[in-house]
Amino acid sequence: MIAFASDNYASVHPDVLEAMLRANSGHDVSYGDDAITARLTDVIKDHFGPLAEAYPVFNGTGANVVALQAITKRWEAVVCTTNAHVNFDEGGAPEHGGGIKLWPVPSPDGKITPAGIDSQAWGFGDVHRAQPGAVTITQSTELGTRYSADEIGAIADHVHSLGMHLHVDGARLSNAAAGLGTGFASFTTDVGVDIVSLGGTKNGLMLGEAVVVLDPEAAPGVAFLRKSSMQLASKMRFISAQLLALLTDDLWLRNAQHANAMSARLAERVRDLPGLTITQPVQANAVFAILPPAVTERLQQQFRFYVWDHTTGEVRWMCAWDTSEHDVDDFAAAIAAELSRR
Amino acid sequence: MIAFASDNYASVHPDVLEAMLRANSGHDVSYGDDAITARLTDVIKDHFGPLAEAYPVFNGTGANVVALQAITKRWEAVVCTTNAHVNFDEGGAPEHGGGIKLWPVPSPDGKITPAGIDSQAWGFGDVHRAQPGAVTITQSTELGTRYSADEIGAIADHVHSLGMHLHVDGARLSNAAAGLGTGFASFTTDVGVDIVSLGGTKNGLMLGEAVVVLDPEAAPGVAFLRKSSMQLASKMRFISAQLLALLTDDLWLRNAQHANAMSARLAERVRDLPGLTITQPVQANAVFAILPPAVTERLQQQFRFYVWDHTTGEVRWMCAWDTSEHDVDDFAAAIAAELSRR
Amino acid sequence: MIAFASDNYASVHPDVLEAMLRANSGHDVSYGDDAITARLTDVIKDHFGPLAEAYPVFNGTGANVVALQAITKRWEAVVCTTNAHVNFDEGGAPEHGGGIKLWPVPSPDGKITPAGIDSQAWGFGDVHRAQPGAVTITQSTELGTRYSADEIGAIADHVHSLGMHLHVDGARLSNAAAGLGTGFASFTTDVGVDIVSLGGTKNGLMLGEAVVVLDPEAAPGVAFLRKSSMQLASKMRFISAQLLALLTDDLWLRNAQHANAMSARLAERVRDLPGLTITQPVQANAVFAILPPAVTERLQQQFRFYVWDHTTGEVRWMCAWDTSEHDVDDFAAAIAAELSRR
Amino acid sequence: MIAFASDNYASVHPDVLEAMLRANSGHDVSYGDDAITARLTDVIKDHFGPLAEAYPVFNGTGANVVALQAITKRWEAVVCTTNAHVNFDEGGAPEHGGGIKLWPVPSPDGKITPAGIDSQAWGFGDVHRAQPGAVTITQSTELGTRYSADEIGAIADHVHSLGMHLHVDGARLSNAAAGLGTGFASFTTDVGVDIVSLGGTKNGLMLGEAVVVLDPEAAPGVAFLRKSSMQLASKMRFISAQLLALLTDDLWLRNAQHANAMSARLAERVRDLPGLTITQPVQANAVFAILPPAVTERLQQQFRFYVWDHTTGEVRWMCAWDTSEHDVDDFAAAIAAELSRR
Repeated sequence: MIAFASDNYASVHPDVLEAMLRANSGHDVSYGDDAITARLTDVIKDHFGPLAEAYPVFNGTGANVVALQAITKRWEAVVCTTNAHVNFDEGGAPEHGGGIKLWPVPSPDGKITPAGIDSQAWGFGDVHRAQPGAVTITQSTELGTRYSADEIGAIADHVHSLGMHLHVDGARLSNAAAGLGTGFASFTTDVGVDIVSLGGTKNGLMLGEAVVVLDPEAAPGVAFLRKSSMQLASKMRFISAQLLALLTDDLWLRNAQHANAMSARLAERVRDLPGLTITQPVQANAVFAILPPAVTERLQQQFRFYVWDHTTGEVRWMCAWDTSEHDVDDFAAAIAAELSRR
Repeated sequence: MIAFASDNYASVHPDVLEAMLRANSGHDVSYGDDAITARLTDVIKDHFGPLAEAYPVFNGTGANVVALQAITKRWEAVVCTTNAHVNFDEGGAPEHGGGIKLWPVPSPDGKITPAGIDSQAWGFGDVHRAQPGAVTITQSTELGTRYSADEIGAIADHVHSLGMHLHVDGARLSNAAAGLGTGFASFTTDVGVDIVSLGGTKNGLMLGEAVVVLDPEAAPGVAFLRKSSMQLASKMRFISAQLLALLTDDLWLRNAQHANAMSARLAERVRDLPGLTITQPVQANAVFAILPPAVTERLQQQFRFYVWDHTTGEVRWMCAWDTSEHDVDDFAAAIAAELSRR
Repeated sequence: MIAFASDNYASVHPDVLEAMLRANSGHDVSYGDDAITARLTDVIKDHFGPLAEAYPVFNGTGANVVALQAITKRWEAVVCTTNAHVNFDEGGAPEHGGGIKLWPVPSPDGKITPAGIDSQAWGFGDVHRAQPGAVTITQSTELGTRYSADEIGAIADHVHSLGMHLHVDGARLSNAAAGLGTGFASFTTDVGVDIVSLGGTKNGLMLGEAVVVLDPEAAPGVAFLRKSSMQLASKMRFISAQLLALLTDDLWLRNAQHANAMSARLAERVRDLPGLTITQPVQANAVFAILPPAVTERLQQQFRFYVWDHTTGEVRWMCAWDTSEHDVDDFAAAIAAELSRR
Repeated sequence: MIAFASDNYASVHPDVLEAMLRANSGHDVSYGDDAITARLTDVIKDHFGPLAEAYPVFNGTGANVVALQAITKRWEAVVCTTNAHVNFDEGGAPEHGGGIKLWPVPSPDGKITPAGIDSQAWGFGDVHRAQPGAVTITQSTELGTRYSADEIGAIADHVHSLGMHLHVDGARLSNAAAGLGTGFASFTTDVGVDIVSLGGTKNGLMLGEAVVVLDPEAAPGVAFLRKSSMQLASKMRFISAQLLALLTDDLWLRNAQHANAMSARLAERVRDLPGLTITQPVQANAVFAILPPAVTERLQQQFRFYVWDHTTGEVRWMCAWDTSEHDVDDFAAAIAAELSRR
């Protein structure tokens, strides 16, 4: 199967598997009190700064719900974009598991601005309004775009000036970093982000994400929330080993650079085809485009990908660390062929 | 490290690792729509009967909270033993993540009886009493004991006669089955259990459990609850592959038989030592014993294990699939030596 | 104080007070097992049909959260308008107290249509999408508009065709009925509504609303949810007595007709004033208008009312059962005077 | 009906009704921004000290759930007695509405001690144990007993030494104060209690309780939690007026003294009757006794009261502010007559 459906379809990187095999050396302490998790903690500090704390969890939804609970009071709500994963794609987990109301802000490009935040972050002190307590942004976004460090810094400053906290859903943080050509800290820790969901699964892991606390005062209780939110792995060494492999020897970067490059290549190959419009800047590992529905249907008989918006015919094509140039070229050729058959 | 602390300290069985490696063959569909998960579904039916449905999840707490939500209404409560994992050891996840009140029943041996259930399952129709909607039992129990099929059948009949549902927390279901010398269905499906948390992690997996629905009418919505409870794996094939390996060629049974045998061996070796009292029947892979605290402290300098009850000096020794006869004999010898040093 | 801020500012109707005094005759059974509550149940059936069940509660937020829980599964979400009270003005109670995600639909007039519902009610069976389980509409709406019986019937048919349930937030149900010139059943029970929050407080009560179940199969467990949602009054007779007084001898209708008439009178008086635009049809007891902000500020020094939208200068003027013609005329004169002072 | 079933069966005191009538003077600001609520705030400070903040709510369950949320983090649990109202009689509201796990401690007399607290308040820092964050005690207790100021002080000191907070469920705080012969502050504010549920309904109100925050730093966000927990009254002046009447001119004290005296009188009348055993010290407005079941059944044909424990035949007799000496004497005579008929 050649799939452009999701970076979740991708396989596990051999270095990650290797790390898991190495971790399998007899008995080891459970629930994170093992040496591998300790090393991960150090490596996270290397990436995110000396105050950073890492809490490995199972999946992105879990990371987000734990993180958002940590930075909000029981009565507070979270501002996000309408198409944010927490709002759109997590089956109501923030509300169901955390009791958290979301204040969504429409966003054509998946990004939010201080002005957009203001459209929902108001009514402070008014008990009738679920109190805006945090903002969550996604980097890179659900629409394949990314924030610059300056943009995130401006958001962080604004959010903090309102007495709120800032979370970054970083299911594809590596793709954003690769695109920006910097490390993680420059657009998180250094510009005032309070807490991050650091993705691994979409970038070559089998399974594993981490809640990374950047401001421990802003985000207390993550260890407890991870447990009460059913995100504490007993044999944590095997999740930590994966994350450790990813964050060592720039594997995270190489994987993300490759996925991004494949998206860029795909966009390049199809951008000028008649009947096809690329709808979002290609700044990470996704291409969004509008095609004639009949073309989409025929393509879906050969390649897996999702229609993003049935009303417009917009589709999403995701590339992963293991998408090959050959895959991209085949796909681009098929797109061209089907478009010309109209 | 030689540890008798927890079966969570154990490594991953080579056959399980092998299955994970095999599953890593390029792209595959995410979220459970893959061929391996489909095969798992079939194998679950082989084990639990044709109506059984399998929902792989990340961990035991997740399995329990998803399962209990599925068999209770929003306003219903769950009867369990005081020392049940859901009550005692899950950081409040059932209450926090599911809004579920527990009605605990003290139990000296970790088991509950119909009479014990009745001590909390009353007040039906009385709005002041959180309505008893389900009973959860643990098989094998947190105290290393196990129910017979008849005992579970009697509980199921009683629970159903009250209009309630029955969940089995089977984090160690394999150990119970091995001890009983039967398959899973004989003490679950065949005697009226509605839903099971099927453990894998403690029996040789890296990470993976499954919610197994035995009566789909009693437990609707598990697919949705798994997602909203943050228990849906994107690359599910790797969890399914582990469970599939476990349930194939009797690996589950061999692992559990071995762990049980090691516990029996340990109990045998130490049972008659002066100053030591075994406090629970050894019916699965745990030995509970009371030792002089000073002896316990000296032993803990060489071996990892937990004090279960500081007031009595009771300790818990767990064996796992990878505990060796040599480990047991060394440990038993050390216990004898330390006891004689008193 | 002459206030056009809210019908919540109004006093208690003398007949309601009288009923409370009569209810105060010595001891009576608590929690609704009293004769007054029994009579209320009968009167509710007279109004809503023989299947209707009444559950008195404390306030509108409580009624809504109880009702929405009753008609949704744990994993389901509720479609509403963006400006619905449940979304906009209840401090996150549905999410916090019920774990319910809301799918909001923008609505310029406070009403929702089948097409609007479809904009959020999709993805059935897709675990990533919080499953649309119910729709809530407000009658009369937060913007002073109302649905016709046919409109609600069309919504009910559409909602049911999707396998969902329909709730009516009737904090101002009486105002809608008075405007429509019909009883409650014609636009609720008779057209397929499943459950209603029947308002009392805004229409002359001291304190009291009722969850009215119209389709008991669609809305199980209300008695239990009322308790677990902290909405069960111990001395319920005093709430039931108020509701009974309201629903007897057409007090509900007389109060609502009067409030509506006062809004109509106010709208009439100011509609043609230069510099003022009425922004919504005046179909219940509210007038929405856009004024120059400076005029609004000066008026607020003499009369209490709310600015609804600071960006447009839109204000809300509510009339109540005890708003007098004199109050309206004074206010209208003041508006005219301040507008001419610009 | 002469009832000894509950102080919830009692009528409303005329002074309270009078205050409600006086409050009904035209329009007034809603949601607590009225002059009566402002006066209540002052009177609460007179009773509980200058830092005290009053938040009127609808009912006792609401007061408790709001208060417990305020003094616990999302991941914390609450230690209580097994027969505490929050655990036993609130339909699971703390778990359902607040996500709060309770750690119950058996108590023969309804009181808890520092040692009892220690039996559940342990495992601090252990993520597997729902973290003990608060203790709730009931004054006077569900079993008609009461704490001395010293006892509560010792509990408060102990609770604070563990880093936890202390809540008093004071549904019958007046009865305790009357029994102790002191004001409220002496056994709450002065001895370190952090937050109180102050009861009104059981002591002569129609409907109304208040969350009284004694240590604002320990209990943030009550205003928001009251709203998100559906406990904010729109026409709050009518609840505040009741509470104000109760706390003025010692009405609270006179009512409670009377109810207590009636219980004492009843206990006195029946204490020495053969076949009857009073099971708890009579320290507030309840008498608990064991009678032959046949006697109980015959008595229940004439008088309403509850069997507290069907296994022992224990019954509960509650007296209220409006229980008359005549009622008590009639009831005592009937008890004596039925006992002698055995």
